[in-house]
Amino acid sequence: MKTSMSDAYASRTDRNAAIIARQDPVIYGAGSYAGALEPGQLASYEHNGFLLMPDLFAGDEAQALLDEVRQLCADPAIAAMDEAIAEPGGQAIRSIFRVHQLGQAVSRLVRDPRIVDVARQILGSEVYVHQSRANMKPGFEGREFYWHSDFETWHIEDGMPRMRALSCSILLTDNTACNGPLMLVPGSHQQFIACKGRTPQDHYKTSLRQQEYGVPDRLSLQLLVEQGGVQAMTAGAGSVVFFDCNTMHGSAGNISPLPRANVFVVYNSVDNTLRAPGHGLAPRPEYIAARNAVEPVHPLECLTP
Amino acid sequence: MKTSMSDAYASRTDRNAAIIARQDPVIYGAGSYAGALEPGQLASYEHNGFLLMPDLFAGDEAQALLDEVRQLCADPAIAAMDEAIAEPGGQAIRSIFRVHQLGQAVSRLVRDPRIVDVARQILGSEVYVHQSRANMKPGFEGREFYWHSDFETWHIEDGMPRMRALSCSILLTDNTACNGPLMLVPGSHQQFIACKGRTPQDHYKTSLRQQEYGVPDRLSLQLLVEQGGVQAMTAGAGSVVFFDCNTMHGSAGNISPLPRANVFVVYNSVDNTLRAPGHGLAPRPEYIAARNAVEPVHPLECLTP
Repeated sequence: MKTSMSDAYASRTDRNAAIIARQDPVIYGAGSYAGALEPGQLASYEHNGFLLMPDLFAGDEAQALLDEVRQLCADPAIAAMDEAIAEPGGQAIRSIFRVHQLGQAVSRLVRDPRIVDVARQILGSEVYVHQSRANMKPGFEGREFYWHSDFETWHIEDGMPRMRALSCSILLTDNTACNGPLMLVPGSHQQFIACKGRTPQDHYKTSLRQQEYGVPDRLSLQLLVEQGGVQAMTAGAGSVVFFDCNTMHGSAGNISPLPRANVFVVYNSVDNTLRAPGHGLAPRPEYIAARNAVEPVHPLECLTP
Repeated sequence: MKTSMSDAYASRTDRNAAIIARQDPVIYGAGSYAGALEPGQLASYEHNGFLLMPDLFAGDEAQALLDEVRQLCADPAIAAMDEAIAEPGGQAIRSIFRVHQLGQAVSRLVRDPRIVDVARQILGSEVYVHQSRANMKPGFEGREFYWHSDFETWHIEDGMPRMRALSCSILLTDNTACNGPLMLVPGSHQQFIACKGRTPQDHYKTSLRQQEYGVPDRLSLQLLVEQGGVQAMTAGAGSVVFFDCNTMHGSAGNISPLPRANVFVVYNSVDNTLRAPGHGLAPRPEYIAARNAVEPVHPLECLTP
């Protein structure tokens, strides 16, 4: 997408940071697309920019997913792939991208109606997987993810036109106050924080470990938190957090011995596929931002194989 | 204190890490020393190695303390003192030591019967202030405090003979899952983790920012947490956590905009004053480990000035 004066969500220009009101719906088609959420849940998602569904998956389902992503992490062939990102300054694996194409259980997960039907309902259309990853946040050394809006990055670095995507984070271990839970700023999805500074080519090679560009300024963060507070998504394994692509979020480091492993799936509307990135940037690799694999996800009819 | 084979708590020798059973009581004199705790609270402290007392101080008392420590942080004369420790890689103040001699409100705080009588009761004797500090953990950039037992450091670097001291952390802001609350390992006070590695002279000049020696090994931490779990001390401003000098604790970084400011007071028994440090180390400065100012703290009769 060409970044111009007509871009509703210009960012990383030479201008200062700015707060811009959201130009897009949060719930598309008034939630009439067949789905699993009650009106009260939809209203809560629309108001807060997220919805936590405790124990959406059973303990053994979460365990099977955890076993699979651990096997992937232990596989030298996977560790050698670009898809595997190490902890900054460490050897432990921080993230594995494209995990829904690398693991069978995760492949079924992204087609599970308990999550994909929620995405279809909220986005009011068919959806595809824009990105998937396992975030391991290993014990003792899992580093923080600083505050960011995913949409800011996807808009600028991937050319995602509008705010019509959402993430869901499936908790594979208990997420507690002690192991760096996801933190969200309620209501922040209604405001777009345009960030300062240009973006170098190939930014993703370092940003997946530690972000330097597309970082919201402290004053804007302070304002968002004064308005909405901060909420930590502490919940048991098998719980799922759905959150809007523009909800401000981050998570602290994990010094506890207890890993905080989640699978993270981004659904984008088929009506919101990627264009050219902003600022003349080269597109990021397919495993970070799908451009070719944009077929709608068909929900599984039956979960038993 | 001379470190020899007869030292019950040898650490930082050339030997490997080791887990040594505690040789000392947790509650001295069976809690018969006049104090404020109920038998159930004493039993809980003895079992877990800590006690959280929600809202022990009123909101306006916590606010007055917060105002004072913020004034101290903003005072260039204080910032220039050795007592003020900056965040690693930052300018913001991380800690101010000897804060009970720098601030009037904190000076009264350490004599407040609501805390000093608890210390006297648990330690079964008169007590003095071994160390005091304000830990600011500022928003956005407050770094973690990695896992440690205070006693391990005080024994080796300060020559504190026995486990007959305790800390109390007075919460000046709300401590939540989002701003890096104190985390404790229940039951860990019953085991002493001897650490690997020698200690360089003047270690405190860097260790107060980021610890490199006296760090427990991961295997021992894992074992302690498997036995006792981890608990985050999330509570409102004015709450107080008392914890044994050997309870394993740490806290994650604070990326939230909300500061996590606490005052931390260490009471030591007057029967447990410091000897020479271990391994021929020079004593640390008086503001980190009191050697001269060991007069018993007399509880205030009346809190109104």
